[in-house]
Amino acid sequence: MQNVVRTINPHISVDCVIFGFSTSQLKVLLIQRDYSNENGAPAQDLKLPGDFITTREDLDLAAARTLNELTGLQNIFLKPFALFGNPDRIYKEEDLNWFKETTGNNIQRVVTSAYFALINISESDLDYALKNKASWIDVNQVPQLAFDHQDIIKTGLRHLQDALRNEPIGFELLPEKFTIRKLQTLYEVILNCKLDNRNFRKKILKTKYLVQLDEKQAGVAHKPAYYYRFDKSKYDKHRKDSLGFNF
Amino acid sequence: MQNVVRTINPHISVDCVIFGFSTSQLKVLLIQRDYSNENGAPAQDLKLPGDFITTREDLDLAAARTLNELTGLQNIFLKPFALFGNPDRIYKEEDLNWFKETTGNNIQRVVTSAYFALINISESDLDYALKNKASWIDVNQVPQLAFDHQDIIKTGLRHLQDALRNEPIGFELLPEKFTIRKLQTLYEVILNCKLDNRNFRKKILKTKYLVQLDEKQAGVAHKPAYYYRFDKSKYDKHRKDSLGFNF
Repeated sequence: MQNVVRTINPHISVDCVIFGFSTSQLKVLLIQRDYSNENGAPAQDLKLPGDFITTREDLDLAAARTLNELTGLQNIFLKPFALFGNPDRIYKEEDLNWFKETTGNNIQRVVTSAYFALINISESDLDYALKNKASWIDVNQVPQLAFDHQDIIKTGLRHLQDALRNEPIGFELLPEKFTIRKLQTLYEVILNCKLDNRNFRKKILKTKYLVQLDEKQAGVAHKPAYYYRFDKSKYDKHRKDSLGFNF
Repeated sequence: MQNVVRTINPHISVDCVIFGFSTSQLKVLLIQRDYSNENGAPAQDLKLPGDFITTREDLDLAAARTLNELTGLQNIFLKPFALFGNPDRIYKEEDLNWFKETTGNNIQRVVTSAYFALINISESDLDYALKNKASWIDVNQVPQLAFDHQDIIKTGLRHLQDALRNEPIGFELLPEKFTIRKLQTLYEVILNCKLDNRNFRKKILKTKYLVQLDEKQAGVAHKPAYYYRFDKSKYDKHRKDSLGFNF
């Protein structure tokens, strides 16, 4: 690996909130931070994958670079969702110390651009991530984190939930054919609530982008359910012709 | 007025794209910039209302403060829509010179957080704005601007159009009661296209948040049309109950 001397821009950073969907849980990808506590003793906590941008680096590229360096993940569609620029967002002694230790500078104010992505945990290269001190944590059990990263995750989760309500992002996490029940579980996991079965079925089928297949589940103890698939071309055509008025 | 010494943070700025709706036009609010051209001669062009943030200033507050100082507008809901952080976004000699003249520093890289708002021109305090070298320019006739402000306006316009398709933002620009035809004009002006009358009526009435009043237009040469109003409580209830699936 080539040794590259990087000059950081200590005023601007990027942070990545990577949500991971598994069968019945929504998790977030966090990495371990080693820092010195108030007594100067070594301690650890968790933080989002993130970094300062370098002086000549585009923000989106900085986010992709950071995520790749810290977790090994690549080719992830990262969507910027908010800027965190409160002048007091960095105030804890351990955070100020950590900046001093890792950059050599006294850094007090950093504006961070936060990105989010939603991926399927079973399809992600988790081995590499774990090796590099990264781990998947249940979004409902996120502990105290470095900086304001808990707030960033909360805001990111709201953006993810809004996106799920307004865009067909859920289907990418399911196999090509799926039952309505599987789709409902995905919505329940991400929205963190129990949905009424009949209502869900009625509403989701009204979208008309779900196509029922001729195939049913096999080898199940209960009454086998039909499989469906998401028809992206029907969806794209609708979006093109539509004025929206989805409100 | 108190004299406040401000220390700017020369790495981060805010820019406001204020769209103004009039009966048949969409405009954008620009302010005059006085700068020195490559020969050192005084010259003028236009830019978005914007400024560096100060060292202790929150970004949203910086945007509101800047807009107020440069145009007199206040209490405008400013929505952040994108971050412009390309390392080469500031390269023109006149832009670099202008920074040098106005801040005393050699500034080369600034990341700007762009905000947008949509207001009704007839209800805005245009006199104050004009007095302060601000002017409303038709979005389809924006000339060459300072920095990358044309790009910022283009991106802002796409966000505005998306918002109009997905949220009931248009109604705030109309009187409490309005005809479908007036609403259609608003959509046509903002989306910059001609819409089919019958289709528009059909689609917009399907949203169910428009309530037909008992009152018709009076004193018009053509067949008088019914007035409608937007029912915000119906809308809010729908949003609360709804899972979305608007995609």
